[in-house]
Amino acid sequence: MPDTPDAVPSAALRAWTSVVGDAYVVSDARSLQDAATATFSTDVAVPLILRPASRHQVQACVMIAAEHRVALYPISTGLNWGYGSRVPASDGNVILDLSRLQRIVAFDEDLAWVTVEPGVTQQQLYDFLRARGSRLWMDATGTSPAASLIGNTMERGFGHTPYGDHFAHVCALEVVLGDGSCIDTGFARFGDVATAQVYRWGLGPVIDGLFTQSNFGVVTRMTIWLMPAPAHFEAFFFRCDEADDLAAVIDALRPLKLSGTLRSAVHIGNDYKVLNGLQQYPWAETGGQTPLTPAAMAPYRERLRMGAWNGSGGLYGTRVQVAEARRLVKSALAGRVANLQFLDDRRLRLATRFAGPYRLLTGWDLSAALALLEPVYGLMQGVPSPRPLASAYWRKRTPPPPQLDPDRDRCGLLWCAPVAPMTGAHAARLTRLSIDTLLDHGFEPMLSLTMVTERALTCVVSIHYDREVEGEDARALACYHTLVATLRRDGYHPYRQGIQAEAGHGPADSAADLLERLKTACDPAGILAPGRYGLGSVTRPSQDVNSR
Amino acid sequence: MPDTPDAVPSAALRAWTSVVGDAYVVSDARSLQDAATATFSTDVAVPLILRPASRHQVQACVMIAAEHRVALYPISTGLNWGYGSRVPASDGNVILDLSRLQRIVAFDEDLAWVTVEPGVTQQQLYDFLRARGSRLWMDATGTSPAASLIGNTMERGFGHTPYGDHFAHVCALEVVLGDGSCIDTGFARFGDVATAQVYRWGLGPVIDGLFTQSNFGVVTRMTIWLMPAPAHFEAFFFRCDEADDLAAVIDALRPLKLSGTLRSAVHIGNDYKVLNGLQQYPWAETGGQTPLTPAAMAPYRERLRMGAWNGSGGLYGTRVQVAEARRLVKSALAGRVANLQFLDDRRLRLATRFAGPYRLLTGWDLSAALALLEPVYGLMQGVPSPRPLASAYWRKRTPPPPQLDPDRDRCGLLWCAPVAPMTGAHAARLTRLSIDTLLDHGFEPMLSLTMVTERALTCVVSIHYDREVEGEDARALACYHTLVATLRRDGYHPYRQGIQAEAGHGPADSAADLLERLKTACDPAGILAPGRYGLGSVTRPSQDVNSR
Repeated sequence: MPDTPDAVPSAALRAWTSVVGDAYVVSDARSLQDAATATFSTDVAVPLILRPASRHQVQACVMIAAEHRVALYPISTGLNWGYGSRVPASDGNVILDLSRLQRIVAFDEDLAWVTVEPGVTQQQLYDFLRARGSRLWMDATGTSPAASLIGNTMERGFGHTPYGDHFAHVCALEVVLGDGSCIDTGFARFGDVATAQVYRWGLGPVIDGLFTQSNFGVVTRMTIWLMPAPAHFEAFFFRCDEADDLAAVIDALRPLKLSGTLRSAVHIGNDYKVLNGLQQYPWAETGGQTPLTPAAMAPYRERLRMGAWNGSGGLYGTRVQVAEARRLVKSALAGRVANLQFLDDRRLRLATRFAGPYRLLTGWDLSAALALLEPVYGLMQGVPSPRPLASAYWRKRTPPPPQLDPDRDRCGLLWCAPVAPMTGAHAARLTRLSIDTLLDHGFEPMLSLTMVTERALTCVVSIHYDREVEGEDARALACYHTLVATLRRDGYHPYRQGIQAEAGHGPADSAADLLERLKTACDPAGILAPGRYGLGSVTRPSQDVNSR
Repeated sequence: MPDTPDAVPSAALRAWTSVVGDAYVVSDARSLQDAATATFSTDVAVPLILRPASRHQVQACVMIAAEHRVALYPISTGLNWGYGSRVPASDGNVILDLSRLQRIVAFDEDLAWVTVEPGVTQQQLYDFLRARGSRLWMDATGTSPAASLIGNTMERGFGHTPYGDHFAHVCALEVVLGDGSCIDTGFARFGDVATAQVYRWGLGPVIDGLFTQSNFGVVTRMTIWLMPAPAHFEAFFFRCDEADDLAAVIDALRPLKLSGTLRSAVHIGNDYKVLNGLQQYPWAETGGQTPLTPAAMAPYRERLRMGAWNGSGGLYGTRVQVAEARRLVKSALAGRVANLQFLDDRRLRLATRFAGPYRLLTGWDLSAALALLEPVYGLMQGVPSPRPLASAYWRKRTPPPPQLDPDRDRCGLLWCAPVAPMTGAHAARLTRLSIDTLLDHGFEPMLSLTMVTERALTCVVSIHYDREVEGEDARALACYHTLVATLRRDGYHPYRQGIQAEAGHGPADSAADLLERLKTACDPAGILAPGRYGLGSVTRPSQDVNSR
């Protein structure tokens, strides 16, 4: 048995060890230090990591925590980069690492669903589907292939296919509550019934949403709906040469989202975002000066044939459906964008083999663009890619290593992802505020806009820096907090929030009291991830309970 | 001030009267008796009806109820036929009638949403949209045009367009909790922000689902997403001559639902359901004998050219998209159905004017079918219709009156709506069990199957009878309870439940304890609709509170 860490009662440690076994109680200083490290500065200590192997072990671990009033911080695979990685939202939390729960529990090809545990990764599901020759596609998000499907869905992450709104495409959660009891949502409440995996709402109140972006329970199982591969897939790419052209494009594409012609997310990245996807900071060219100014960006735009904004989307269906969608996209974007290009597997092969003639014919230097396009082209078909993660190394002075680990490598990365109504005017205002704030604070304004639903845009603003540079941690956090406050004043709240959010600085919230009562209903001792999403008491749970 | 009803504390009555005004405190015996009357037998008394005019009045009424520990039963317009109409789920509830909250609060043509109060009806929204020349369609459900949009959505009702899953197309609920406080969901929590109406999930836990099929709060405002009218609409109709042909049709259509080609619900009714839509019970032809046996149905099938199953669906999009969908539907159903017909406005006009030649050309006697098709054709375009409600008069001996009111007219109607996975085998089993159970109990088995989502079927089983017939109330309820238990054994749980569900006879439920804790978090005094969906204590709230 490991030494008793200061912050953990020895009786609890003994009990946990008897449940999960010596090998899965982690208390060496290096591991604990790693687990307390994110892509920005944090100030909490992790006294212990528990690695249960099953739902029953999770229940036992939670019961022990509740009995001894020790806070537990559940993570799936813990790759929540830009939002806090594995680091708990408050001090002294024991990490409950669910990565050993990695079974694909059930699968149905005809009804197109799969049931997974929290340790199941994007790559694992992708390989599973390919290995059995499935005609189904998963949705993948542009983070590490090693990221957990449940972890991303519980944060309500999004991807690139028609199933990109992850939380909208899951059901039948199995959840361990703060007292160690286990519940199921939807019809799964009534046992292993045939309807559990196919119908989201069940009977009576719908409670699935309680367990997303919260600390109300530990999700140990989830059913994910999968998308039948379409007969034909085609991607489209376009650019806006002037920043001001963005608004007209959003207004032109909105009707196609609303009508269902564009069924997947449309992503639009600015020039900084594209450059960040292709290379690291141009240290040599800038003589080491930061930030890269808009004026200094101009030659890169020219050389890489980037626009101020660069869009991509996918078309899915039969050949006729895709051709009609292509016609409608062309018509909507005519005169509003430069260089609208459509790409399918056949054209991609041709362009790769005959890059010169292709460029002559289309005016598009596809081979140069491929480095950037290929991961996007794959993501639109649900293929996980490790490539986007390399962008976390933007401001590092050394190239990304073969095994990427932004926490370990002290990459600086903060993500802020505000939502706006899908109008050109809102897109223009939101992006203007974001760009100005980042430049003011000395960071490159890397933005991507995603038309994620029929009516809403999400803008992911990335603050990239090098944690090795003295003072940068503080400057980056100051930039982040200013950005959040600035956007909030205009009503652009984030769709998701990391542990870097300032406690007690939230907006007026009519549901705040209710949420605390719901937290108590789900987690009476307040031991699950106190402080996450501003919920629960961040004083030690034991004090909290005693003072009642 | 009205006389004090026995069951209501006089102090509460005084307080409510001062809030809503004399005219809106209803206590005459006739009104109370009407409010306690559903389309099946009930045994609760209603001591009082309150008719507040605003959300603030609702809050005040709820606070008074909490103070005096009197149960309140909120209704929107109260037209929940087949599930209990306005009748409370337990005895002694004061009805909180929200029909005076009938403002259309806000509307956005570009982003396609409207914000309504609970008294806003289907017809009111339809008229509102037409009056301003909107290009947006609402979704309508096949009940009275006077039904509340919020009421139907809170029961998770469904309609016929691509926005048919009502709860999936709303956001920004305003809810008065059991202590009289008022909360908002999604980004509306943070005030009147631009994103409140366009993005469903907000930030932090998603709580909207708590207020559907429950008694956790009183929804006083809701935003509904609307669908842009497609450039072209076309309906299709088909029939299966043999009952056994159903399974192959379900399996053939599922890929089209999953691929997004069929974006709206496909409805498939059996012969009894169709006959029920066209006429009352054939008393003369049967010499007054019930039920109408399958053998006796045969001549009606022949005469009305009905199949054992009769399907309809809608195609939405550009002309090319609709034509391609038509091709795919034809290909999927080829050899599996009889008389597949497509109908758009042009063909409908032609067929109406030239019924004879149209019949010769297509073999389809459209003018005879129009009586049935017209409401369906309209519903698929979001046009509310009063016609389906007339079917409640099936077993009455007199024709439906001009003003339909199944409660008043003692129509007998019980709805049971089980869900099954969308496979032919499940559809066959679910319908077989339902048909056998109804015939065994002496009722005509009227069934409609709806392919409501990509993976699930909902089957609406209607038990029609005449409440004037001695003993029929009891026989119908016995049939209903047997049906629910029979279907549950095979895992087919209902998507929705009325007050006729037997208390304490639910299945094992892993979330039962949690749901009660959530109920207490939302409604600490337990005054809101005790017993609805089996939630809350059905002993008098005052006793309940005193005994804690």
